[in-house]
Amino acid sequence: MKTDIQIAQESTMLHIRDVAGQMGLTEDDLDFYGKYKAKISLDVLRREEKTEDAKLILVTAINPTPAGEGKSTVTVGLGQALTKIGKKAVIALREPSLGPVFGVKGGAAGGGYSQVVPMEDINLHFTGDMHAITTTNNLLSAAIDNHIHQGNKLNIDVRRILFKRVLDMNDRALRQVNVGLGGKPNGFPREDGFMITVASEIMAILCLATSLEDLKERMGQIMIGYNYDGEAIFARDLNVQGAMALLMKDAIMPNLVQTLENTPAIIHGGPFANIAHGCNSILATKTALKLGDYVVTEAGFGADLGAEKFLDIKCRFGGLNPSAVVIVATVRALKHHGGVQKADLSTPNVEGLEKGIVNLEKQIENIRKFNLEPVVAINKFVSDSDEEIQYIENFLNKMNVKVALTEVWEKGGEGGVELAHKVIEVAEGAGTYKPLYDVELPIKEKIGTIVKEIYGGSSVAYSPKAEKAIREIEAMGLDKKPICMAKTQYSLSDNPKLLGAPSGFEVKVNEVKLSNGAGFIVCLTGDVMTMPGLPKVPAANNMDIDEDGNILGLF
Amino acid sequence: MKTDIQIAQESTMLHIRDVAGQMGLTEDDLDFYGKYKAKISLDVLRREEKTEDAKLILVTAINPTPAGEGKSTVTVGLGQALTKIGKKAVIALREPSLGPVFGVKGGAAGGGYSQVVPMEDINLHFTGDMHAITTTNNLLSAAIDNHIHQGNKLNIDVRRILFKRVLDMNDRALRQVNVGLGGKPNGFPREDGFMITVASEIMAILCLATSLEDLKERMGQIMIGYNYDGEAIFARDLNVQGAMALLMKDAIMPNLVQTLENTPAIIHGGPFANIAHGCNSILATKTALKLGDYVVTEAGFGADLGAEKFLDIKCRFGGLNPSAVVIVATVRALKHHGGVQKADLSTPNVEGLEKGIVNLEKQIENIRKFNLEPVVAINKFVSDSDEEIQYIENFLNKMNVKVALTEVWEKGGEGGVELAHKVIEVAEGAGTYKPLYDVELPIKEKIGTIVKEIYGGSSVAYSPKAEKAIREIEAMGLDKKPICMAKTQYSLSDNPKLLGAPSGFEVKVNEVKLSNGAGFIVCLTGDVMTMPGLPKVPAANNMDIDEDGNILGLF
Repeated sequence: MKTDIQIAQESTMLHIRDVAGQMGLTEDDLDFYGKYKAKISLDVLRREEKTEDAKLILVTAINPTPAGEGKSTVTVGLGQALTKIGKKAVIALREPSLGPVFGVKGGAAGGGYSQVVPMEDINLHFTGDMHAITTTNNLLSAAIDNHIHQGNKLNIDVRRILFKRVLDMNDRALRQVNVGLGGKPNGFPREDGFMITVASEIMAILCLATSLEDLKERMGQIMIGYNYDGEAIFARDLNVQGAMALLMKDAIMPNLVQTLENTPAIIHGGPFANIAHGCNSILATKTALKLGDYVVTEAGFGADLGAEKFLDIKCRFGGLNPSAVVIVATVRALKHHGGVQKADLSTPNVEGLEKGIVNLEKQIENIRKFNLEPVVAINKFVSDSDEEIQYIENFLNKMNVKVALTEVWEKGGEGGVELAHKVIEVAEGAGTYKPLYDVELPIKEKIGTIVKEIYGGSSVAYSPKAEKAIREIEAMGLDKKPICMAKTQYSLSDNPKLLGAPSGFEVKVNEVKLSNGAGFIVCLTGDVMTMPGLPKVPAANNMDIDEDGNILGLF
Repeated sequence: MKTDIQIAQESTMLHIRDVAGQMGLTEDDLDFYGKYKAKISLDVLRREEKTEDAKLILVTAINPTPAGEGKSTVTVGLGQALTKIGKKAVIALREPSLGPVFGVKGGAAGGGYSQVVPMEDINLHFTGDMHAITTTNNLLSAAIDNHIHQGNKLNIDVRRILFKRVLDMNDRALRQVNVGLGGKPNGFPREDGFMITVASEIMAILCLATSLEDLKERMGQIMIGYNYDGEAIFARDLNVQGAMALLMKDAIMPNLVQTLENTPAIIHGGPFANIAHGCNSILATKTALKLGDYVVTEAGFGADLGAEKFLDIKCRFGGLNPSAVVIVATVRALKHHGGVQKADLSTPNVEGLEKGIVNLEKQIENIRKFNLEPVVAINKFVSDSDEEIQYIENFLNKMNVKVALTEVWEKGGEGGVELAHKVIEVAEGAGTYKPLYDVELPIKEKIGTIVKEIYGGSSVAYSPKAEKAIREIEAMGLDKKPICMAKTQYSLSDNPKLLGAPSGFEVKVNEVKLSNGAGFIVCLTGDVMTMPGLPKVPAANNMDIDEDGNILGLF
């Protein structure tokens, strides 16, 4: 079997000028980055302001399992399938973080015959957006420590600085550091830590900004910590938001690449799906909506986290109105939710499936709460039995949900044609989506609504730290914002071991944090790791490039 | 008077395709980065292997003074002047570091009507080379700490790790840090520090590598520290040189931009001029040599540091044979070397000039030791008196050195035509340059030769630490390498206050360090700062960009 990179390298890419040409864009609208990548000018969005938006399709999934669901692959495959049946499709994806590429094999470029290319560039430096975010974040950090060193006019409390440095690297040694050591010339010692770049609030801001002005405004609103009187200090107090915006002037432009079948793919922004909202940028999605008939996008993790945040945060901020939601599942993953062990997943087992399908059922019910209609995509594996497939189809028929088998990994767009037709049918009949809650509600009411309505929990318990944070945010009057839940992706609950569709559980909120620039309130359940580490044998050890540019070991 | 950025923004840039076209390059040879920047494929150098090299001209200067000399401006202006008189000229410059842009106003893009453009891009992220170096450096750092965390099979001594992390930021708080804090999941605590990216050995390697294979080989040879038995550990022992080379696959390609007068400028690599050799990349210079008749390049700091390292390190490694050396001076700077105070520099003062011209005299003598002939460029200021100019001309006539007045800041290439003609005359008569010393000599003999022959010192004193390092390097048999001197740029001696041409002084060597990947031995005199800090009011505070992309406060 060919590896993803072999398949990718055998594909025939069009010059990016021609991919853009399919969408009516000319060279003036683009900044090329080599022959197969380009940035799209924000002028395009301004120029097409009056053009009617395309239909927006969200691809999400059941709670992920070790069996794998293939959400990105379906997203790319559906885009290719729509192209195949003659629709103008544009795919809008997140861009991958470089750090994890060197840790465990993986990426966010799809797989098999449903990939975006050039995958090696997309997974390495791409067009430099991650680096721009790293630099912008760390300029603010340097400005904070410099301000303190130069007299600390703002009276910043070195014990209460919330804003951390970042690097796009899996580097556990940087999680907790002491900086400013070595004496007077090196500033004041304090505790700090590095997060991975995608966890930066700058990344969340990039993805939620609707213009360069809005980006700058939001960066100025980042709450960096407290002064010694306990009052909030914002980035704008240091007056570096202009320089920060300048550093982001190219990064704010959406990136254009293509799929293996030359469907245009806009890949832009990739915030963490836990402490941030896990969706590509609003500007990229809006640009895509002006350039195609159908825009296919995805959100991080399963539907309980990804789709909820897509709908309650991104769509709300961006004024987006999605037309359909694809929920990806596999027979194997549903059996896993039914308690079947990993080693037994290839054995037909309708009983296990019956137990596990409740996870899919709950995600379907959830999507309908947003006044949206889901379509289920069953990503087919050779081990799936006819009986198992039949069971799922019957189950979904009873729920009056459309379902399609997909084979996009093996067959590319051809393997997603049935799904494409069903998605179109649903999208054409769509109404207006509605968010789950009103942002004007108190923080606890908003959290409670998500826990009860989406997760199926019965109650929420707040740590004293979380209680205090909520009081502080409300006292500052900065609480009228959507909630960004950080929760295990593996369960509808906050306990990764509770598979299927648990109910009656209590969700424990450890921390509540204000991401004032991004414009949401992060609610943390359990520990959230914002800086990964490298494994015993990092993927980096197997990577190489020869003098002719042949790449080895990358995926 | 217009600012540099105003002049730059008023210029008419050609599409980079057309700049490349002037040199016979086609779109296939290029990777565009927007409309005005491109990377040149390494295939060009391979294809043109048999083409005769252009004449290589080095621009250097007297020891810099607060009065300013304008070395980069002359480099760009000379390139423009050569174009103006009908020669195929290519300029080869270093790329600026992003960090200092936000500190004190400055940059490495020339000035006035002799600039490279687009200056805002060149001074910000450019084509991402700095970010690639940062990432490559920090991947190696992460691999070191991960190796220790995962069992430390190599027995790396956490107290003796030499390889530091880097960021392209002026951030004094990161000079000295403790990493790996927070307990077992975060690895082993140890002392570390961040340097600015241009100080990374990866940068020096990029600039000295002659191919991607060579780059990879050199990265593997980086000495990262010692094991508990006191034996050297190299990057290749961690087996990440392949991944590191992969991260550098685009960064290794030279970048093409243009001057205000559309002369092609290749800007690539910018290592520190103290702990590294301060020249642009060999690959860029070699590529330029295949594409023009005259290549104008520069080296960091004054001739005693910059030209010496250009000739003894870069030219030696690259097999380059320069044809002429331009030494830039100003009447004001020469008077400063003669002891005239900054406030009095605008007052005509032949006596002060007479005292200070010895600095220029010594630099001229030094260049001739390499079997090269210098041309002096006097960068003209309105305050210069005819008498002063006449004095310099007479002085240089006696030394049989060609001299030209230049006004490239005010007039662009037109202001450098006289210089261009004199440079051509010298270059056409050039022989074969020879390095100052044999690399096979013992370390102390090499250092002694530089101190006596170039600086005019009488002796060298080594600290116990330096003595120990020399013994260790020699014991490992890694001493047959050129010396990379790190010394104050303001004096021929190691004391910044000794202006003019001091003699009889002792140079104190504090530290000797092996840059085994770069392939040189760093000899540190005095303190060398490898991570700058931000000033009280950082330049960043005045920077901004508006919705239409208009940039404010950048230079």
